[in-house]
Amino acid sequence: MEPKQDSLGEWRRTKYTAEVTPLLEGETITLFGWVAGIRRHGGIIFITVYDKEGSIQLTVKQDLAPQDLVNALDNVSDHSSIGIRGIVKKMDKAPNGVEIQPIEMKVLAIAKKSPPFQLQGTNIPRIDKLLDIRALALRRPEARAIIKVRRMTLIKVREFFQKRGYEEVTTPKIIATATEGGSALFPLLYYDKEAFLTQSPQLFKEQLVMSLEKVFEIANAYRAERSRTLHHLSEFLSLDVEEAFVDYRDIIRTLEDLMEEVSSYLHLSCGKELSFLGIKDKGPMPEIPELAYNKAIEIVQGHGSEIEWGDDFSSEALGILGKEFPSFYFITDWPATGKPFYIQSKGELSESFDLMSGPLEIASGGTRVSSKDELEKKLREKGLNPNSFEYHLKVFDYGMPPHAGFGLGVERLLMILANQSNVRAVSIFPRDQYRLTP
Amino acid sequence: MEPKQDSLGEWRRTKYTAEVTPLLEGETITLFGWVAGIRRHGGIIFITVYDKEGSIQLTVKQDLAPQDLVNALDNVSDHSSIGIRGIVKKMDKAPNGVEIQPIEMKVLAIAKKSPPFQLQGTNIPRIDKLLDIRALALRRPEARAIIKVRRMTLIKVREFFQKRGYEEVTTPKIIATATEGGSALFPLLYYDKEAFLTQSPQLFKEQLVMSLEKVFEIANAYRAERSRTLHHLSEFLSLDVEEAFVDYRDIIRTLEDLMEEVSSYLHLSCGKELSFLGIKDKGPMPEIPELAYNKAIEIVQGHGSEIEWGDDFSSEALGILGKEFPSFYFITDWPATGKPFYIQSKGELSESFDLMSGPLEIASGGTRVSSKDELEKKLREKGLNPNSFEYHLKVFDYGMPPHAGFGLGVERLLMILANQSNVRAVSIFPRDQYRLTP
Repeated sequence: MEPKQDSLGEWRRTKYTAEVTPLLEGETITLFGWVAGIRRHGGIIFITVYDKEGSIQLTVKQDLAPQDLVNALDNVSDHSSIGIRGIVKKMDKAPNGVEIQPIEMKVLAIAKKSPPFQLQGTNIPRIDKLLDIRALALRRPEARAIIKVRRMTLIKVREFFQKRGYEEVTTPKIIATATEGGSALFPLLYYDKEAFLTQSPQLFKEQLVMSLEKVFEIANAYRAERSRTLHHLSEFLSLDVEEAFVDYRDIIRTLEDLMEEVSSYLHLSCGKELSFLGIKDKGPMPEIPELAYNKAIEIVQGHGSEIEWGDDFSSEALGILGKEFPSFYFITDWPATGKPFYIQSKGELSESFDLMSGPLEIASGGTRVSSKDELEKKLREKGLNPNSFEYHLKVFDYGMPPHAGFGLGVERLLMILANQSNVRAVSIFPRDQYRLTP
Repeated sequence: MEPKQDSLGEWRRTKYTAEVTPLLEGETITLFGWVAGIRRHGGIIFITVYDKEGSIQLTVKQDLAPQDLVNALDNVSDHSSIGIRGIVKKMDKAPNGVEIQPIEMKVLAIAKKSPPFQLQGTNIPRIDKLLDIRALALRRPEARAIIKVRRMTLIKVREFFQKRGYEEVTTPKIIATATEGGSALFPLLYYDKEAFLTQSPQLFKEQLVMSLEKVFEIANAYRAERSRTLHHLSEFLSLDVEEAFVDYRDIIRTLEDLMEEVSSYLHLSCGKELSFLGIKDKGPMPEIPELAYNKAIEIVQGHGSEIEWGDDFSSEALGILGKEFPSFYFITDWPATGKPFYIQSKGELSESFDLMSGPLEIASGGTRVSSKDELEKKLREKGLNPNSFEYHLKVFDYGMPPHAGFGLGVERLLMILANQSNVRAVSIFPRDQYRLTP
């Protein structure tokens, strides 16, 4: 016979585990959570129960507890969800200084399988095994710490831009034309037309500065990257910012302020989690150094690496730069030739920057082209057909103000902030070339 | 010769128009914005300039002002972007009690075309004309009011759920299997595999309650609706909420609280905009009435409309209900047969609800099935293949706690909150069967 599972009925939680303190001594409370360890010791059963806020110890004395409760525990495996009505007892030896003596239990969901990892263990399987049952793997303390860093980062980012008068916008992810050329796009069938998933909200956010002036968006973007690396996702969260009446120098300062505020907020709000993830609080973040592209080339060449002016940096070159600048730094004033059509040139250089952390690119931005003639010229230079961008170009006829902005890979930033070497660990349900489920 | 446009150079805004008050009398300030009307009257040129925060009047005395500034004004058409350095002067007759006497001007972007609408006019073209140049149409006061209602609604929704301990999550929009069956999906090519754009984060948010317990998401979802109506979008913003250890009765109360808090926050923060949009403050929102499906059927039949128990409500039926309940109401306890496979049945009914506003469905939710056997049975009943849902079903083997939740169409809600009859007016860049640009 299948072991019986109870229904929720009228039971509702009265406390999270983390809210139970010795001050509640003698009170009857209702807890919900999942089991993470049952030990039997001399007529006593010790059960550790987790919920999203923490954990607590249940202590069942076999001769005193209701017999049906003791019997029901036989079917309760690790990860099973239970509800407990019990009495709070001070207990100095217990982890939180309290334990619960259960008087009634509901077995709400029995785990029939054992996952290929332990909640607390250090013997962790390959990340793919964890991702296959991601919903359960998120119960692990490391994942919980990452989720909290993610939450606090996104809360701070929103607050930062809202306080400074940026409008949070939503732009289409289904687009008629490739933003920056035709590679690395996912094609889709939009009714009877061909369309694509957007790589970036670039053109939309530029258009929006005409009325909203300062905009930001936090939304998914898509790149059909054929390479399987530790820092590429097919679907990633992009923070996009665009602003009228400023240039790339202003945007660099804004992004620097953002990084400082996020960093100090995390140390305030996630001290325990950062420490668990191996990150030390080194005090206020130092100013983010700037490195002109021309100077960066010299550094790389100085290390004997073969690179010519105008080249993008290879992984080897990024490795060299990352050793000189292990933390955040900007590479500014890139050659115009390598930049997308919407970036403003100044001579053979461009008004552009990347935010780096060691060898990893986190964000990219610049002053945008605001003249329609210039934009058409640059489209043609890149081998793109201005007619395909007619829906974008036509708004320039009504006067596009000067503007600048940046795009930032949120998961890339979270890799740094949560000290993770694999971008998949900071995405809730990552997508890559080989992963389309769960 | 093309009229000259100036570059931004070192100019930066020192004030928004709305910050300029008579207290600044005599100060020199720098403003940026777009022109909305130039009048010449007896040697004086009056120019109205808008920015994202408001508007202000510039007063140029032709004989006293710098001659190059007066000359440059000849090229400045409506919607052109300019920068102004000028002196603040008290002027009781001017709209804000102040005017600016410009001493220097930069013409940053000249509008070469005139849009087919006026900023302030009541003679508004069809919405399609406005959407074709949406970036510019968002300068209209009505659009600005809607954008502010949108902003404040989303800020309040996030705050509501964050305060109550829900985790904001991001789930994949690219999925391997149709959530609720195969219709109305956009297919895409995911590398070499077929995939789809998600209609709802339903299965992902359900999985996430196993570890995060209470989750919400605000993100795009997709429906390939072939019908062109006033309340369907192909890409819409979905608010999704899911919670462990509760049932649909708890979720109804949560959603009611949310509607009350959003409504009162909007009246606090957007009084002027709501009034401009024709919405009166009627004080605190009354309790949202509940109408069981069985009772709703009786009402519709009582009006002589042909409907049988088990049917969904036709537009005619919704019209009848909408007249009886012109504001928010819940329809609860729907027949199990019409509900998706993941909704918990109770006899021939189900633990489900819709939030309605008049004839319009805003949200839909219920208690979910948490037993794997039951879920497989329901999948088969709906003609779906459990094997296609293996990546979802397998997490149930580890014990899925009881849970419930809802999905809400954000643009539908904004239609009500901003008093709009066309859903396209509350989407920034709407997508429907006939619109893929801008």
